[in-house]
Amino acid sequence: MPIAAKIRDALETSSMIRKMFEEGNALKKIHGDDKVFDFSIGNPDLEPPPAFHDVFLRLAGEDKPGSHGYMPNGGFPEVREALAEKSSREQGVKLDASCLIMAVGAAGGLNTVFKTILNPGDEVIVSRPFFMEYRPYTANYGGVLVELDSLPDFNLDLEAIKVRLSPKTAAVLINSPHNPTGRVYPAETIKSLAGILEAHGKASGRYPYLVSDEPYREIVYGLEVPPVLSAYPESIVVSSYSKSLSLPGERIGYVAVNPNIRDKDAVMNGLIYATRVLGYVNAPALMQRIVAELTKERVDVGIYERRRDAFKELLDAAGLGYAEPEGAFYLFCKVPAKGHESAGDDRAFAEHLKKYLILGVPGSSFGTPGWLRFAYCVDEKRIRASGPAFKKAMEEW
Amino acid sequence: MPIAAKIRDALETSSMIRKMFEEGNALKKIHGDDKVFDFSIGNPDLEPPPAFHDVFLRLAGEDKPGSHGYMPNGGFPEVREALAEKSSREQGVKLDASCLIMAVGAAGGLNTVFKTILNPGDEVIVSRPFFMEYRPYTANYGGVLVELDSLPDFNLDLEAIKVRLSPKTAAVLINSPHNPTGRVYPAETIKSLAGILEAHGKASGRYPYLVSDEPYREIVYGLEVPPVLSAYPESIVVSSYSKSLSLPGERIGYVAVNPNIRDKDAVMNGLIYATRVLGYVNAPALMQRIVAELTKERVDVGIYERRRDAFKELLDAAGLGYAEPEGAFYLFCKVPAKGHESAGDDRAFAEHLKKYLILGVPGSSFGTPGWLRFAYCVDEKRIRASGPAFKKAMEEW
Repeated sequence: MPIAAKIRDALETSSMIRKMFEEGNALKKIHGDDKVFDFSIGNPDLEPPPAFHDVFLRLAGEDKPGSHGYMPNGGFPEVREALAEKSSREQGVKLDASCLIMAVGAAGGLNTVFKTILNPGDEVIVSRPFFMEYRPYTANYGGVLVELDSLPDFNLDLEAIKVRLSPKTAAVLINSPHNPTGRVYPAETIKSLAGILEAHGKASGRYPYLVSDEPYREIVYGLEVPPVLSAYPESIVVSSYSKSLSLPGERIGYVAVNPNIRDKDAVMNGLIYATRVLGYVNAPALMQRIVAELTKERVDVGIYERRRDAFKELLDAAGLGYAEPEGAFYLFCKVPAKGHESAGDDRAFAEHLKKYLILGVPGSSFGTPGWLRFAYCVDEKRIRASGPAFKKAMEEW
Repeated sequence: MPIAAKIRDALETSSMIRKMFEEGNALKKIHGDDKVFDFSIGNPDLEPPPAFHDVFLRLAGEDKPGSHGYMPNGGFPEVREALAEKSSREQGVKLDASCLIMAVGAAGGLNTVFKTILNPGDEVIVSRPFFMEYRPYTANYGGVLVELDSLPDFNLDLEAIKVRLSPKTAAVLINSPHNPTGRVYPAETIKSLAGILEAHGKASGRYPYLVSDEPYREIVYGLEVPPVLSAYPESIVVSSYSKSLSLPGERIGYVAVNPNIRDKDAVMNGLIYATRVLGYVNAPALMQRIVAELTKERVDVGIYERRRDAFKELLDAAGLGYAEPEGAFYLFCKVPAKGHESAGDDRAFAEHLKKYLILGVPGSSFGTPGWLRFAYCVDEKRIRASGPAFKKAMEEW
């Protein structure tokens, strides 16, 4: 066997998603890029803000000696300090450089965290729907992802989480603003969850970590994302600049650890060691320096908001229901059930939409059949132009 | 337990190396940076070549739309093509973009390869001394590193490798130019190794991969590094621009796969999948574009060569023997044995050298006691200035 059995199996599974992607590309080849309404990919299309270009150009001009060399595995101390300050403002607790390490994007950060905290067989609780890469991110380290349904409004089902906690629970993983629903978990939900974890820790002796994946924190519409670190000491935030500064290809993110976490030294040394041996070694040097100067910048969220509103308008007009998105850049739509079906068939609906040259991702790909995700990382004009296609698709479903 | 058992154990082990590092820092604090001869760290101190600065500044000025966005996990197709051409020149076989993926440095590349090829319990054969991170890089995926001694001249012990091959052997891992010895494996050695692996594959049905870690390929003194891909079809080269362009902090490297490898599609899809789920997602976008324009550039190797010669001169004068370095930037010295010892005590010698404010790394840290590594990533003047200290240290050993 030329490759590992697990990888071979994974390739067979992921070939389905690739097939969908390839079919989309085939549609574009037949009909032309500008005729297909591709809402399938969550790839931020906005350019980084002007301040990014300024800093980028200035650092390239200076190009100081040693600026592309190694630094401590956790990142440049002054960068960690700058981001700790930013995290302090967001999280309502005082962090310093010793609480934060730089990561190769949030994906690298999550792998680093799971490598650090998971023993084989340990469980990570997550709420459906969820970003499917969480499965390999935990399985990479022998972890088991425990997938629970969320409430009908896509808030966390705290009762279900409470019941499922066990001595094997290493972490509860949340993602807010949420992919694919756009949900932002309210402060009371975070506080109640913290209370449940605290009580479970007290009773069992093992306090599960609350791991918060927050790459969309700055992509919100008229509200703030409640802090996680101030709610529960055993908490870890993972984030990136892929969305807030539109730098997904540059792989720059961080892991911020609660200053009051138990055995903080072991956790931080573990994260630094994991960063090293997983082969990240460190987050890219230049981008570290750039984001440290941009802690108060973000892309123009108003653009995403106008797209969201345009998209909601056309879905309303077409009669397609959706979860109210408070952040991120996704609309999670309820697939209309046919006849005596209890839930709409999301795969069939995705196929149906293709006839009208509309591409979306079935909720099954996030663990929640009966729904369909549209990403609005697409020009507002294109969104508006898709209105008649949506209407026709709904009439003929 | 707040962190994974394996990580906790690893931290305990690696604390020894940290201790050494901290003691070096303490020496510098007491005596001043300019008084300590720190030859312990293999951190390239040369600046990237002028052509790097030109491309960097031009790309920063243009900053084209989409240039920081996602691209396919394997990297930008045109970058892969450019590096495939470069690899074709170096390796004596014709590669195209489909044979190569971009990686987060060679460390990221090796992790990606091992994730792709290793089933739990599979063995990777390596020759002592070796870069110690190979241990976690294989253990991360349940692999077992089989450590064999090399010949007295630090060439590969082919007979020992041949005897140790088994149905569990997934790969033989080599590193040339070699850290810590500076050895470059001759073409005949590579060819003989290929013959052994080929014969083993024919007999057992499992052809071990030959994985060649080559970040030092361009740091050589008056010779060329023989190709690996043209010698054996089941071969994979991992490399980076950390040394050749002095960009270690930017984490940019690649994995080049033999175009004639068995089940090439499975291997390439596996590598791409592993890159994705290990959280690298892709190599940093900007650096991909920069290195693609610099495939014929490298740092001024003459500087390293002059340092090497200066270092050899002072070791000769002090009476300290070493392996003849043909590449990389290390001198591996034989610790003089005392009295009836069969080999010198490298840890004791490292401690002894500290009294003369000289820092090196004991061979034990590379699996080969009785030797000591000096890195000459240090200004030539500093190297020359250390002569009297070496002499005195040797006299008093």
